[in-house]
Amino acid sequence: MSVAGNADGAPGGGVAPIDLIGEAGRQWDTHWGDDAVPAMLATTSIMRAQQILMARLNEILDGFDLTFPRYEALMLLYLSSRGSLPLGKIGERLQVHRTSVTNLVDGLERSGYVERVPHDSDRRMMLAVVTPAGRSVAGEATRALNAAQFATAPLTKADLETMTALLRTLRADADGFPPG
Amino acid sequence: MSVAGNADGAPGGGVAPIDLIGEAGRQWDTHWGDDAVPAMLATTSIMRAQQILMARLNEILDGFDLTFPRYEALMLLYLSSRGSLPLGKIGERLQVHRTSVTNLVDGLERSGYVERVPHDSDRRMMLAVVTPAGRSVAGEATRALNAAQFATAPLTKADLETMTALLRTLRADADGFPPG
Repeated sequence: MSVAGNADGAPGGGVAPIDLIGEAGRQWDTHWGDDAVPAMLATTSIMRAQQILMARLNEILDGFDLTFPRYEALMLLYLSSRGSLPLGKIGERLQVHRTSVTNLVDGLERSGYVERVPHDSDRRMMLAVVTPAGRSVAGEATRALNAAQFATAPLTKADLETMTALLRTLRADADGFPPG
Repeated sequence: MSVAGNADGAPGGGVAPIDLIGEAGRQWDTHWGDDAVPAMLATTSIMRAQQILMARLNEILDGFDLTFPRYEALMLLYLSSRGSLPLGKIGERLQVHRTSVTNLVDGLERSGYVERVPHDSDRRMMLAVVTPAGRSVAGEATRALNAAQFATAPLTKADLETMTALLRTLRADADGFPPG
């Protein structure tokens, strides 16, 4: 997912892959000057990194009948003190819309990892509850992801810590928690 | 989009937002040790950063009847030497599936920014061609994104350059271009 660059000499059969984002940076500079180039490069690099990581994580998780977004929802339940959460709370936590939560929980329910049950004191509120099979797969999938260093190769521990610290500044600004 | 953490004390009405990813890191350490914590934090931070940036960019682009993925496809055409590309090439460049390219080009066509025309020498091959309205909005939208530093506030130029360099290592590994 690159905002362009050198669009005619695209890598095809036998052509060596090139750094499309770097190439876009050179085109940007030519057309609009260098003022926004570092921001354009960083934003499009994050978009592409997300694509790369999502594809790798989904491949690891495929053997567990999970996708990474479903894994995230499952882990929320697994790590909660009661093993259950209201659907609305899951959406808040994952910062996704209600329809996405419905889809995630539907997927987990089809795999037998989660059940929907009405809340004890408010029967109109639906809870997602992790099942024993869900608990078991959450542990196994986590061990697989940990062993694969969450698909971050070839980044080093120092690289990862630098990245997390930089992105924490962005997250704090957007999500409203203290940056310090 | 955080893999969990402190799921019962979620930020609700009036509760101060917390760093959910940092909290997940502490839970990870408790359950599985610290070996994969830097990788988990970096991966989930990139996922969340992508969500934040995409929402901000889409907001900026909404006034231009564009989304960021459509903007990327439009810029590919805008920066190509002929102002047109085969649909397959667009998919290669954006590294998305054919159905996604169809949706992107459909959206751009509905806005009047792109037209589909058969290729001169091979009438079975469809080209996407940028229209004069598409050229005009590509320039305007780019100026707006450049002025907004591609939604990267509050990151500094040095932060952005560090991020791009780190992610280039990941991209080179995944996309097969030389890391150097």
